[in-house]
Amino acid sequence: MANADKKFVEQITPMDQDFARWYTDIVKKADLIDYSSVKGCMIIRPYGYAIWENIQKILDARFKETGHENVYMPMFIPEGLLNKEKDHVQGFAPEVAWVTMGGSEQLSERLCVRPTSETLFCEHYANIIRSYRDLPKLYNQWCSVVRWEKTTRPFLRSREFLWQEGHTMHATAEDAQEETLRMLNIYADFFEKDLGMPVIRGRKTEKEKFAGAEATYTVEALMHDGKALQGGTSHYFGNGFAKAFGIQYLDRDNQLKYCYQTSWGVSTRIIGGIIMTHGDDSGLVLPPSVAPIQVVIIPVQMHKEGVLEAAEALRARLAKFCRVKLDDSENSPGWKFSEYEMKGVPLRLEIGPRDIENGQCVLVRRDNREKIFVKQDELETVIPETMEALTRALYDKALENRERRTYEAHDLDTLKEIAATKSGYIKAMWCGDLACEEKLKEEADVSSRCIPFGQAPIGDRCVCCGKPADKLVFWGKAY
Amino acid sequence: MANADKKFVEQITPMDQDFARWYTDIVKKADLIDYSSVKGCMIIRPYGYAIWENIQKILDARFKETGHENVYMPMFIPEGLLNKEKDHVQGFAPEVAWVTMGGSEQLSERLCVRPTSETLFCEHYANIIRSYRDLPKLYNQWCSVVRWEKTTRPFLRSREFLWQEGHTMHATAEDAQEETLRMLNIYADFFEKDLGMPVIRGRKTEKEKFAGAEATYTVEALMHDGKALQGGTSHYFGNGFAKAFGIQYLDRDNQLKYCYQTSWGVSTRIIGGIIMTHGDDSGLVLPPSVAPIQVVIIPVQMHKEGVLEAAEALRARLAKFCRVKLDDSENSPGWKFSEYEMKGVPLRLEIGPRDIENGQCVLVRRDNREKIFVKQDELETVIPETMEALTRALYDKALENRERRTYEAHDLDTLKEIAATKSGYIKAMWCGDLACEEKLKEEADVSSRCIPFGQAPIGDRCVCCGKPADKLVFWGKAY
Repeated sequence: MANADKKFVEQITPMDQDFARWYTDIVKKADLIDYSSVKGCMIIRPYGYAIWENIQKILDARFKETGHENVYMPMFIPEGLLNKEKDHVQGFAPEVAWVTMGGSEQLSERLCVRPTSETLFCEHYANIIRSYRDLPKLYNQWCSVVRWEKTTRPFLRSREFLWQEGHTMHATAEDAQEETLRMLNIYADFFEKDLGMPVIRGRKTEKEKFAGAEATYTVEALMHDGKALQGGTSHYFGNGFAKAFGIQYLDRDNQLKYCYQTSWGVSTRIIGGIIMTHGDDSGLVLPPSVAPIQVVIIPVQMHKEGVLEAAEALRARLAKFCRVKLDDSENSPGWKFSEYEMKGVPLRLEIGPRDIENGQCVLVRRDNREKIFVKQDELETVIPETMEALTRALYDKALENRERRTYEAHDLDTLKEIAATKSGYIKAMWCGDLACEEKLKEEADVSSRCIPFGQAPIGDRCVCCGKPADKLVFWGKAY
Repeated sequence: MANADKKFVEQITPMDQDFARWYTDIVKKADLIDYSSVKGCMIIRPYGYAIWENIQKILDARFKETGHENVYMPMFIPEGLLNKEKDHVQGFAPEVAWVTMGGSEQLSERLCVRPTSETLFCEHYANIIRSYRDLPKLYNQWCSVVRWEKTTRPFLRSREFLWQEGHTMHATAEDAQEETLRMLNIYADFFEKDLGMPVIRGRKTEKEKFAGAEATYTVEALMHDGKALQGGTSHYFGNGFAKAFGIQYLDRDNQLKYCYQTSWGVSTRIIGGIIMTHGDDSGLVLPPSVAPIQVVIIPVQMHKEGVLEAAEALRARLAKFCRVKLDDSENSPGWKFSEYEMKGVPLRLEIGPRDIENGQCVLVRRDNREKIFVKQDELETVIPETMEALTRALYDKALENRERRTYEAHDLDTLKEIAATKSGYIKAMWCGDLACEEKLKEEADVSSRCIPFGQAPIGDRCVCCGKPADKLVFWGKAY
């Protein structure tokens, strides 16, 4: 009977052979997503959605700790409202989905499905902000947004995706700038400490900034294959939208003043980033903070007397401090090992007759497959410690990958050669001219990823035109 | 300085004078919603959204306890997919919003914004269900849906609303029927025990059932004004959709069989139901289970020595076991009392110099304004007890209202007269004919609310046609 008709844990494409196929294999085989007849959109399956729920739980708590409140705005934006801020509409109009009919009636004004909600928040803020006492307003929204992408990939680029978008209003430019960086740092900490993903914090160039923003800040992560992923962004708007939407407050000095604004967001892309940072040829590797199952218990020789009972007793104990699953199905231990490796479960706990005799069990780490024999009465301390160590190890490994893949270029030819033969970040000085940025894109197929904080210039001439340059920029190819 | 420029807590329209205006006043004045230029949609403001988050937290935990998993499906449904089940599309097509353009391109196939997701779930289930081992599949989704309503009211009928939709697949009709009722009972318990809203559990008539379902079950609540509100529904589909979508599994006996299906949902309507069941002329009255603030602490003579410190110490203590807020703003206690009554905060805790001397404080219930002097060291027991008592009192009061407003009719003239002069449920026997149901709608303007479980017939003749009848039906006007 056993596993004859149970699906065999299939091999996935090795990552060094074809990284894109390796990625697609994982999202399917780890049961993260499925496709449907809705082109360019994905179904997020229970295992994938549980990762997102854990991401939400952590971030939502941090947003609330820092005074933010959740709201829900309509998913539609009337065309006239979207048009109110010129740079913004130019950036987004080409990629929105338009609702033109309601029931059998043609709408008198088209509605776009929100690609982002600045315009809706601004209209609302204009309604509810009167006095300096109403400021700051710190709102956030968890929702889905739509951008009509031509080519799509699960989690990374999808016509619909889930995200959170914070939108805040402040009395002064300083307050808004401080908020912009506060939220960027919350993202950076989340990536580094919770997800074990080192990020570079920096500012986007004018070309790469958000449509309508004065400044866009980003946390950039480097994937295993050397391509960059924008992990999260935080935008400072000045009072541009406030002027377009008439968002004013009466200050202490009895003057009407415009508000200053921020917005910031992360999305289900994060899940793609986790896969491509930590995954290996056996499948997904999840950081414990967001893993739907942190520890899987696999009984060995489970039909021997006392094994299942001992395994269940351990499960009940572990459930008090971690997300644990006992797999007591009839599949073989070997099949189970592969299955939970594919699913990236951080820790596997094996228990068999011999272990029971010795009052111990075997703990196996997903990342390096290290086996630890643990006294059963020490699990309460060993498991949390091992999870922390695992997250740190993920971070170190990803950092090592990034450092190994970070190059420097001082002239265009070198930059082009690196771009053509290596994959990773290229550090190079830039004069600040759009023309140079565009030339690098055209000739080397790299984009500016960010102008990192804590600038440590590596020269004083632009890598492209040779003119004086004071900006160090990380260039690269990106998802 | 004080409150001169702080908004005055305005009076709302008394409910007996104009219930509809009273309702609209509350949703605005309690800061639950705001309007925008998106016609027929609402902005759910932080205080309103926090109620929804609490509803989600409670229900999501119960869904997970009963083995359900969350997923996320695309928000669009291609027209061809929607058309696959005939009854279903006939029910929904007239009220959907259609996306016809992506960016600047006309789509080759229109996409509707999901009004409900049976079709998407079915397509997915057809992909992933192979064997009896895959069953049951118990999925749920939290999302927003769109129905192009002509007339809208906040929470009650809105073009977009938030909900959860459970969609499950089972091996047998019995399993699916059991699930349908299990979820109906989870809803009923939530309404009665958590929200203090008595409901009638029953079955919908053929006319009122969900488009494509074999049977729809409902929990019906009666509002303060005597109109009914459908609180939640649970549908049994048989294997109709499974046949349309080819959802089959290989059973133990090696036969391919069709799956049996359910779906069930509740929405942000619940918030409208809470308002109209418990609210009064001072504003909202929230059951503690979902109240964003369960206890508000209001210091009296707060600039006297030690008052603010004592209030803050209480806040810190209460924060360990309930959602508490200390309002130490410069507004007067009287203003604060009105403000938190408007917002429906279940308990108000007052503390002043005299109370501190006596080691006590004053606890005031929002529902009946009962004042209790409580020893400070008993708050840990008194507050949870008082919250429970408050929920029970809300339930009793709502039940009393329902009983007072439940009438019986044995002939058409009586029914018409009751419908014309009273507001509430009318119990009457029905033969089961659609014609009679339609006649009651036309002549008395009442619809069948449900055929309650635990039938206790009050006669044996149809109230409309006088023919033999064995079904007791609750009739009424509904939101």
